[in-house]
Amino acid sequence: MALMSLLALVPVSLVLTFIGAPPWLRFVTSAAAVAVLAEWIRRGTEQLARHAGATVGGLIMVTLGSVAELVLGLFVVASGHMAVVQAQITGSIIGTSLLGLGIAILIGGLSRQRQTLKPAKAGLLSTLLILSVIALLLPAIFDYTARQGHLRDVRITDEELSLGASIVLLLLYAGNLGYTLVTHRDVFADEEADAAPTWGLGVSLGVIVTCTVVIALESEFISDVLIPTAAILRMTPEFLGVIVLALVGTSGDIFAAGWFAHRDQMALALNICIGSAIQLVLVVVPLLVFISAFMAKPMTLVFVNPLHLFAIASTAFIVNAVARDGETTWFEGLLLVGVYVLIGLGFFFIRPA
Amino acid sequence: MALMSLLALVPVSLVLTFIGAPPWLRFVTSAAAVAVLAEWIRRGTEQLARHAGATVGGLIMVTLGSVAELVLGLFVVASGHMAVVQAQITGSIIGTSLLGLGIAILIGGLSRQRQTLKPAKAGLLSTLLILSVIALLLPAIFDYTARQGHLRDVRITDEELSLGASIVLLLLYAGNLGYTLVTHRDVFADEEADAAPTWGLGVSLGVIVTCTVVIALESEFISDVLIPTAAILRMTPEFLGVIVLALVGTSGDIFAAGWFAHRDQMALALNICIGSAIQLVLVVVPLLVFISAFMAKPMTLVFVNPLHLFAIASTAFIVNAVARDGETTWFEGLLLVGVYVLIGLGFFFIRPA
Amino acid sequence: MALMSLLALVPVSLVLTFIGAPPWLRFVTSAAAVAVLAEWIRRGTEQLARHAGATVGGLIMVTLGSVAELVLGLFVVASGHMAVVQAQITGSIIGTSLLGLGIAILIGGLSRQRQTLKPAKAGLLSTLLILSVIALLLPAIFDYTARQGHLRDVRITDEELSLGASIVLLLLYAGNLGYTLVTHRDVFADEEADAAPTWGLGVSLGVIVTCTVVIALESEFISDVLIPTAAILRMTPEFLGVIVLALVGTSGDIFAAGWFAHRDQMALALNICIGSAIQLVLVVVPLLVFISAFMAKPMTLVFVNPLHLFAIASTAFIVNAVARDGETTWFEGLLLVGVYVLIGLGFFFIRPA
Repeated sequence: MALMSLLALVPVSLVLTFIGAPPWLRFVTSAAAVAVLAEWIRRGTEQLARHAGATVGGLIMVTLGSVAELVLGLFVVASGHMAVVQAQITGSIIGTSLLGLGIAILIGGLSRQRQTLKPAKAGLLSTLLILSVIALLLPAIFDYTARQGHLRDVRITDEELSLGASIVLLLLYAGNLGYTLVTHRDVFADEEADAAPTWGLGVSLGVIVTCTVVIALESEFISDVLIPTAAILRMTPEFLGVIVLALVGTSGDIFAAGWFAHRDQMALALNICIGSAIQLVLVVVPLLVFISAFMAKPMTLVFVNPLHLFAIASTAFIVNAVARDGETTWFEGLLLVGVYVLIGLGFFFIRPA
Repeated sequence: MALMSLLALVPVSLVLTFIGAPPWLRFVTSAAAVAVLAEWIRRGTEQLARHAGATVGGLIMVTLGSVAELVLGLFVVASGHMAVVQAQITGSIIGTSLLGLGIAILIGGLSRQRQTLKPAKAGLLSTLLILSVIALLLPAIFDYTARQGHLRDVRITDEELSLGASIVLLLLYAGNLGYTLVTHRDVFADEEADAAPTWGLGVSLGVIVTCTVVIALESEFISDVLIPTAAILRMTPEFLGVIVLALVGTSGDIFAAGWFAHRDQMALALNICIGSAIQLVLVVVPLLVFISAFMAKPMTLVFVNPLHLFAIASTAFIVNAVARDGETTWFEGLLLVGVYVLIGLGFFFIRPA
Repeated sequence: MALMSLLALVPVSLVLTFIGAPPWLRFVTSAAAVAVLAEWIRRGTEQLARHAGATVGGLIMVTLGSVAELVLGLFVVASGHMAVVQAQITGSIIGTSLLGLGIAILIGGLSRQRQTLKPAKAGLLSTLLILSVIALLLPAIFDYTARQGHLRDVRITDEELSLGASIVLLLLYAGNLGYTLVTHRDVFADEEADAAPTWGLGVSLGVIVTCTVVIALESEFISDVLIPTAAILRMTPEFLGVIVLALVGTSGDIFAAGWFAHRDQMALALNICIGSAIQLVLVVVPLLVFISAFMAKPMTLVFVNPLHLFAIASTAFIVNAVARDGETTWFEGLLLVGVYVLIGLGFFFIRPA
């Protein structure tokens, strides 16, 4: 099985690191290994969820769905590359919502006149995406205002504001879980029938824990070679974060979304792509803020680079425009991919001086 | 009757002012008195409207609906606290559209699976809210551009631009009245049956005039103690304006919206919350610009603080996302309240240095 | 026939130019001549399209639909007035999308309770408009970020970024042609029945070529007198570009949209107004970037004036809010015109110092 053999990337990246291979080679192999391990965690989680029944299973799926991104983010934060983590967050949002959803809609639409989405679901996901954008932009705007001298005689403490906003986001996420898994379960339940687990409970847990530990190790390798790799490729570390690292964390989602779209299960594809971006903002980002505060290397919610804010806001608007009417066609997929390429071009043409 | 006994706040605030009580105590009692008096004006207006028949009555309701906010705003402008008035305007918009509508949707949705809105009405209100946002942002963006040196050799006169924009806003509001009360009356007429007046014409007019005069007096008191109160509470005067003063002017709307939502009359709740924000921008703000120009203390439409622009724009987008589909659920209410709390946190963490 | 006699403007503008009449008079007559010639090109194109059959005819219509704007833009670029070309682009977008569509909806709605649009078409045009806005804003935001010191040790090359983005836009436009003319032709075909051509093939081609050449000549005249005219009228050259030059290029579209709206053919009116704005961004702007690069007077996509970005973004949001529900009423038309007047006021009050 192909995915099994790809696990060979893990020992390869280990060996390359210990023999001191060129940084870019270590970066590429470690990043690819993380992508493969993330997919194994997803499988283990799926099996675990089948043991647990519908509601608890749904909770397990969404809770463990972002483990890989969280671990990768924590190690990059720990090594002090704040800007790279923020780039990775931005890149994950545009990677799943623009590139992933765009490819899915394009694939699904090539052989069909049009595909339909549940309007209630598309509407909720669009609204949550707009909320996420507001939440991510807010601290940056406040920080910018306070620092640029628009207000006199004030001080702002980014850490306090970030912690406060993170609590609000986690509470809203808890509300979202109650909404989709309990009170309005009928609207949001996926089409997939409940299946019996094929792995035992112990195997499932073992796979999840082992892969998480190995991802932590690979994340450490990646953090070490980030700057040298960027220098060799004549790119900014930021470009590596927005495009490369982000796609590492989300490649599994993008493949899965394309697969479901091909089978005309657009609700699942939408859920994976937009749901993944929302979960990043409402769960991974607040947790990074909290854990990094404990590690005494606080990551704030303040995105210092306006490009990120623009990229995230654009994503929300174009996804909203495409998804809200409950129908998709191939050209809408092409538009989403086009916006991703435009944003990627912008990050690409900002080169080291 | 509870509302009658609350009028005792008026003499209490008078006494506290004349015995020289601590500023924050005078601020709180005067602010609460304004909230109570605004509710009495609303009742008097309702009675007056019942004497006048449907179309003229509707006109009376909307025209007198913002008297309290206008009077309060004028006195704060007259005392020179320009930034506080702008904060109060921003606060009223987010207070009714996010907090008020959010609470109403939450209350209404707790005991129901979903509630419906008339799509035509929700669509018009959303569109007017976006128009209002553009109108409020425009002068600030022009001013910013002209002053930051993006354009060479130009001058911009904020007062002229503000007066010109105010005329356009008032004309659009007149068009809106013709639209909702005359040409498309059938679409926008509220569900409430016409009721017979229970107060005489003279009593109704007397209550309105008296309460307006007393609000003017209380507003004068509030203006006097604004700065000392902010200093004591270690808050910026701006925070007092955005959160406290704004809620004073809109608490009646928020309670009424919650009440109608509880009775599943979402169209009325939406009308109160969004209609109140729109009326503020299309009527109260232009009138403040005109009257303040006559008072030789011109208030311009230029919102100098980017936080206000961001808060107002965010409100329009999230309300649009929630209301446009013509259905609401409790979680959408929670999202609106969540965005209000996020924005409030931002204003809160900007502290005096 | 009225349109025939208006061609007299061409010799009049020629004579005025050669006798050295006052600049503003030469500006006005040349500008009016361009508007008339653009309408003749439109007629010639329509005849040509009828010779070619439905699909190729549609392709001819959209391809030649922007010839006048492209030629006018090229001559203004060639004379070095970069800011005026960008102003003309902004002005064309708001002129067709706000003023043109607003007038059309207003005219159509005055004698009807409501008019309907095909939702699929309105949705696609709204989405493309949002894409266009993102594409136009992106280079400016990147440029701003790189130059304002938010990023350290980077350089950005506006020309490379502009060329790259232009390629993406042209590819998306090709996709749009395939979508509307081939794969989803049934959804987007206009209501108008195919008509037999009344002009011969040669006459049609001759009219198009001749008018294009004369427009080039008149554009040269306009470029020469731009600055003196602005000085005499005490306006910025930018105001001339945004309001006057832009309306010259789009007056034909605005008249046609009003005419179709009057006959209750709102789909055609919408197509003309929004389609024209989209075509400008996806075709005319990239071609201007490419051709100007060849002329060694590169025009970049970087809009240096934030007013343009705000005007364009506002347009997309309000058009989206008005058109998306598939229904229009007179008041929505009034709102669009109102936003146009607000933006126009802003540009007007930025006066030469």
